[in-house]
Amino acid sequence: MPQLLAKTIEKIKPLDREAMAAAQARQNMLTKPQGSLGRLEELSIQLAGIQGKSVPQVRQKAIIVMAGDHGVVVEKIGNWPQSVTAQMVSNFLRGGAGINVLARHTGVRLVVVDTGVASALKADPQLISRKIALGTQNMAQGPAMSMEQAIKSIETGIEIITAEVAKGLDIVGTGDMGIGNTAVSSAICAVMTGRPVAEVTGRGTGIDDKQLSHKIEVIKQALAVNRPDPKKPLEVLAKVGGFEIGGLAGVMLGAAAQHIPVVIDGFISGAAALIATALSPRLKDYLIASHVSAETGHPVLLEHLGLKPLLNLGLRLGEGTGAALGIFLAEAAARILGEMATFAEAGVSEKKERKS
Amino acid sequence: MPQLLAKTIEKIKPLDREAMAAAQARQNMLTKPQGSLGRLEELSIQLAGIQGKSVPQVRQKAIIVMAGDHGVVVEKIGNWPQSVTAQMVSNFLRGGAGINVLARHTGVRLVVVDTGVASALKADPQLISRKIALGTQNMAQGPAMSMEQAIKSIETGIEIITAEVAKGLDIVGTGDMGIGNTAVSSAICAVMTGRPVAEVTGRGTGIDDKQLSHKIEVIKQALAVNRPDPKKPLEVLAKVGGFEIGGLAGVMLGAAAQHIPVVIDGFISGAAALIATALSPRLKDYLIASHVSAETGHPVLLEHLGLKPLLNLGLRLGEGTGAALGIFLAEAAARILGEMATFAEAGVSEKKERKS
Repeated sequence: MPQLLAKTIEKIKPLDREAMAAAQARQNMLTKPQGSLGRLEELSIQLAGIQGKSVPQVRQKAIIVMAGDHGVVVEKIGNWPQSVTAQMVSNFLRGGAGINVLARHTGVRLVVVDTGVASALKADPQLISRKIALGTQNMAQGPAMSMEQAIKSIETGIEIITAEVAKGLDIVGTGDMGIGNTAVSSAICAVMTGRPVAEVTGRGTGIDDKQLSHKIEVIKQALAVNRPDPKKPLEVLAKVGGFEIGGLAGVMLGAAAQHIPVVIDGFISGAAALIATALSPRLKDYLIASHVSAETGHPVLLEHLGLKPLLNLGLRLGEGTGAALGIFLAEAAARILGEMATFAEAGVSEKKERKS
Repeated sequence: MPQLLAKTIEKIKPLDREAMAAAQARQNMLTKPQGSLGRLEELSIQLAGIQGKSVPQVRQKAIIVMAGDHGVVVEKIGNWPQSVTAQMVSNFLRGGAGINVLARHTGVRLVVVDTGVASALKADPQLISRKIALGTQNMAQGPAMSMEQAIKSIETGIEIITAEVAKGLDIVGTGDMGIGNTAVSSAICAVMTGRPVAEVTGRGTGIDDKQLSHKIEVIKQALAVNRPDPKKPLEVLAKVGGFEIGGLAGVMLGAAAQHIPVVIDGFISGAAALIATALSPRLKDYLIASHVSAETGHPVLLEHLGLKPLLNLGLRLGEGTGAALGIFLAEAAARILGEMATFAEAGVSEKKERKS
């Protein structure tokens, strides 16, 4: 295994049980019936364990959106031209996309990375250019990328998150942009979960029944041609992955290595999480599933990861839009734990013990 | 029917279909696959219809928390002393409760109203004192309140929301505080939905099996003694309701009459919505169910109202905590519609039409 990746995985430690116990003890002293804030309470305990702080802090927030193109689009698996990937990156940089609105609404800084868009993008101070190639190769005809490219994509993600941590960061969300990347994610999902392709392949941006059958056939062909081994996550990424997916896997691993909670978005981020958690099973404890999307394979994927989504709003946009909402909830959870008064502070009577 | 209530109900109009069509048309031009923001898109259309604006606005936000006490607590249906209602009102005024934290987190102003706490509360510039009585009577022995008190509670809610609208308001959330009010809400829910008491009665702040059986018996007795008629919602409110529940019903009606969307909280706000929508079936279109709570009867109640909750986070605190999260989502929905770039503005290619 390459050095930066190996070192990063080595740094991912079990959650801090002491901080979690202290956070739980504080939750129980706050002026509310114990457990009455449900998943917000659970989330605060998880954040405490990840950050190693009895009162976790969610102030400096970022979403890293990685963009990349996919050679498999020549198989006509969707309705949108490949040029939309580059156009949407421009849209991110000008603030007009869905994720821009939600990032502003939640006070999250947006980090836009070109990991392999299929055209030269105009230089922009807001764009981090880490292009690995002008899109991947067509996975239906052979490997999407070389092993070197796959490793480079992950290491790029580790470097990007490390730079963000240096700027100050309490939590990170993941987001993606890449025409064709639901097909790629379905391929990864089928391999890593062992479920049939048809069960984990959906309509992406909105295809009809005939197109869906074709998409399933293309993915099956990609798996037949490449025969990726689920025990070798780097090989799976190289054969049927994408640059932005490798990049997001790197972001997740790098964040966990630095005690930063990771709020994952939808199906594409989930595919990245399948690769990343196969490389480091401990990573799972650092992940927060923001939502379950409308994409067919997503519930299967989350179940495989053992993650329970916070939201179910029928989202299927990607870009980190669900992650932004999840970060809002994580911030709410941390603030509840940090800012609510205790029974003693507020002079509120506690629950009576029953006499019977 | 009393004049203010009748006039308010008369002012509740059907949603503005033209604004909704314009909002839907704009959603379809935004740089995302159509429908890919799921319930956030639906919510933006509903907001447009309520406000009568093709681009609805959610900037000035309030949550009205109404507090009241319940005579039925003498039947020992819970674990917390009645004095906690007053203590929690103080906690609200000092900023230490769960709702204070979430109101700050979501930029919502908090309006705290004493509709009938069972003790004299210290005057406070932040507290609106509209005490109808020092708590209701014990519904297990007779009517909880007189018809005059029931009407006064609703009219109080109408007056409070009208004053808030005058200050500037785009959306309102509802919240409650009142030891014993899950029992009262279960009574209302059983009457209005026609479902058995046991099916709509839960553990409130956290009671055991034996206590739950006793709580169910007390509610059954209240219904046997009072025989409330579900066709007469004011009578139901008077016989087995509460001052804060009537107040919240008034807030809902008054908000709808003034084109203000209402984000309802959990089970107690839901009971208020049962009364209010029975008075004005049109009100339903103005309601947004923020979440489904952990309280047993809540899913039944929401189904009866025909409302689909936005969140399912196992919350059961009340105070408007779920409503605050729902208001955040409503603001997100409105901002998405208002701020995202269209395909034309962003120079993004639209979905290709299929040739076949």
